Amino acid sequence: MPRPPELSDRAVALKPSLTLEISAKAKALRDSGKDICSLSAGEPDFATPPFIVEAAQHALGSGFTRYGPAAGDPDLRAALAHKLSVENGIPTQPEQVLVTNGGKQAIYNLFQVLLNPGDEVLLPAPYWLSYPEMAALAGASTRIIPTKAEEGFRLDLDLLEQQITPRSRLLVINSPGNPSGQVMTRAELEALAALVARHPQLMVMSDEIYEYLLADGQQHCSFAAIAEEIRSRCFTVNGFAKGWAMTGWRLGYLAGDAAVIKAASALQSQSTSNVCSFAQRGALAAIEGPRDCVREMASSYNRRRTLLTEGLQALEGITLTPPQGAFYAFPRLPDGVPDSMEFCRQALEQEGLAVVPGLAFGDDRCIRLSCAVADETINDGLMRLKRLLRSF
Amino acid sequence: MPRPPELSDRAVALKPSLTLEISAKAKALRDSGKDICSLSAGEPDFATPPFIVEAAQHALGSGFTRYGPAAGDPDLRAALAHKLSVENGIPTQPEQVLVTNGGKQAIYNLFQVLLNPGDEVLLPAPYWLSYPEMAALAGASTRIIPTKAEEGFRLDLDLLEQQITPRSRLLVINSPGNPSGQVMTRAELEALAALVARHPQLMVMSDEIYEYLLADGQQHCSFAAIAEEIRSRCFTVNGFAKGWAMTGWRLGYLAGDAAVIKAASALQSQSTSNVCSFAQRGALAAIEGPRDCVREMASSYNRRRTLLTEGLQALEGITLTPPQGAFYAFPRLPDGVPDSMEFCRQALEQEGLAVVPGLAFGDDRCIRLSCAVADETINDGLMRLKRLLRSF
Repeated sequence: MPRPPELSDRAVALKPSLTLEISAKAKALRDSGKDICSLSAGEPDFATPPFIVEAAQHALGSGFTRYGPAAGDPDLRAALAHKLSVENGIPTQPEQVLVTNGGKQAIYNLFQVLLNPGDEVLLPAPYWLSYPEMAALAGASTRIIPTKAEEGFRLDLDLLEQQITPRSRLLVINSPGNPSGQVMTRAELEALAALVARHPQLMVMSDEIYEYLLADGQQHCSFAAIAEEIRSRCFTVNGFAKGWAMTGWRLGYLAGDAAVIKAASALQSQSTSNVCSFAQRGALAAIEGPRDCVREMASSYNRRRTLLTEGLQALEGITLTPPQGAFYAFPRLPDGVPDSMEFCRQALEQEGLAVVPGLAFGDDRCIRLSCAVADETINDGLMRLKRLLRSF
Repeated sequence: MPRPPELSDRAVALKPSLTLEISAKAKALRDSGKDICSLSAGEPDFATPPFIVEAAQHALGSGFTRYGPAAGDPDLRAALAHKLSVENGIPTQPEQVLVTNGGKQAIYNLFQVLLNPGDEVLLPAPYWLSYPEMAALAGASTRIIPTKAEEGFRLDLDLLEQQITPRSRLLVINSPGNPSGQVMTRAELEALAALVARHPQLMVMSDEIYEYLLADGQQHCSFAAIAEEIRSRCFTVNGFAKGWAMTGWRLGYLAGDAAVIKAASALQSQSTSNVCSFAQRGALAAIEGPRDCVREMASSYNRRRTLLTEGLQALEGITLTPPQGAFYAFPRLPDGVPDSMEFCRQALEQEGLAVVPGLAFGDDRCIRLSCAVADETINDGLMRLKRLLRSF
């Protein structure tokens, strides 16, 4: 038998996306006839709004099937620069925007063009599980800044500043946050900007993919809008997946310093080239269209987030910081139940309930539940969770 | 003034794709009103066949707008495995196929999961300009194996074997080749397979993106079909861009050892995730459909390749190995004219002729001309080239 080829060190170290894996496992179980209730997906349960679908269909029919500039359709880059300038308060030129295959590639490209082996990424926990993997793919290490469920997952700036070293190159923030659902306030962001200003080696990536998904009374502030003095060190990541229900389209963007965007574009020109040409025309329609569809979906998530929040708060032993945005809840498990991996394995096997272990997000005492599902699925999931908790 | 952020070493070392740059520059000049004749693009001038466009439009309308498995739509992976098994003679299971954002990402991912810093890629010249950049992005170095225009760019196996070291991890072949247009024969591939069998540390990536574009009398052989004994060390890269005129769709694939494909899928799940869901349904229609449209386009390139070949052969001082496939000619410039970069600069500025300098492909005495344009554009380009050559 021939030996299989050896993998590179980076490939051996790499973990595949656990959330995608759990969703796939739940889907496979359901396809095999099992009664599965999934609160695991990080995906809107809405269809993409028809005017966006029609714009892409029209582009397909009008020959938008050719290569385009690697950095993105010029019309779309201009529209995104305008959106960032006007809607987010971040003065942005079109050459400061790179159109990417989802927010994921925006982050991957940024890490690749900023981080050297030995550099450190500062990452408040709980965090989206792909950040540390992407840092490792760039040869960088990740320094976790823990936050506490009982303190509402607020970022402790003193703790953060203690962790900064000369090799700290990039701080990652994500508000509204996945998995915690927490929204950073303007005051918190201003204090953070003042801290970053004291450390000239440090850059900031603000992942704002959930910007439109806010509980009543919450406001989204873009870090780069607030951090005026250090703006050339601030990068904004966003995309169409969550706000416009366009997950499968793979459309995101990276915005910031023009020289960094140029480098990220060069990387993209050598790794994937332009994002699918006609899909970009759908994104252009979305960004230029009214935000009614976004607001309607956001308001539906609000109703369901409340349903999930109240349901979880009623469960004995569960501690929950009520989420303020995005479409997740990240409750703490009672003491005495197994760790999050084992808990989620039992949830799937005993109750057919698919939820994501907090370990994937850097907190092994929590689990993540999504509310981007029908009300009856939320209620069904809560019932299954209640039964499982009773079994311990 | 705040200093702009420093780039990573890999970003500083990276060159953007020169062919994309030249195409963009020619387009910008034309948009500004200049009379430009471009033979620079590596892109079919046909529209994507309507049945493929309609399949993607239909998918858009039927909700294929959600996340899918990072490795690709299961139907598409199965269809590609079947195609490779039956059409190419490479026995392939669906789990041995990864659907990527163009052939480019197939190569990028493969290099990332196989190559460590210090590893060497063996690359026969002239070569497609992205290979060395992608090797560098994986931390590997590239060892060029030169071939000679006057020997028809045939690969010298003795020379190749002399260059192999214990760090030689991957040999890249590309037939039909960009930019030379040369097609490796079955006998050449068999001899190459015997050589590779003697070096167990060496793997082979065969880039077969031009497989359907063959001059009359030429045949395409897949290396992995021939190299039965070492098949687990062979990887096949292909895509829909050239054969089906689907450049802007960004649809390619990587096939080979299941463990390597799994690692490449994991990388993709952390960098871009699934390729655009509805675009994949277009690709499925293409691969399952009849090959009539592919054959018609290929026969049109054949006519134009002959036109370009005969026109170049009639130019004084130009030496041309007639291309046997793909849609390029790669003639050698006469002695006494400037190097390829300077020649191409003058071509664009003095004659409004956009062609690509051979330097980008590892041969500074040649230029690349595309025949994927209308007959009159080929004739116009030949006339401009003739005028420029006379001026030296």
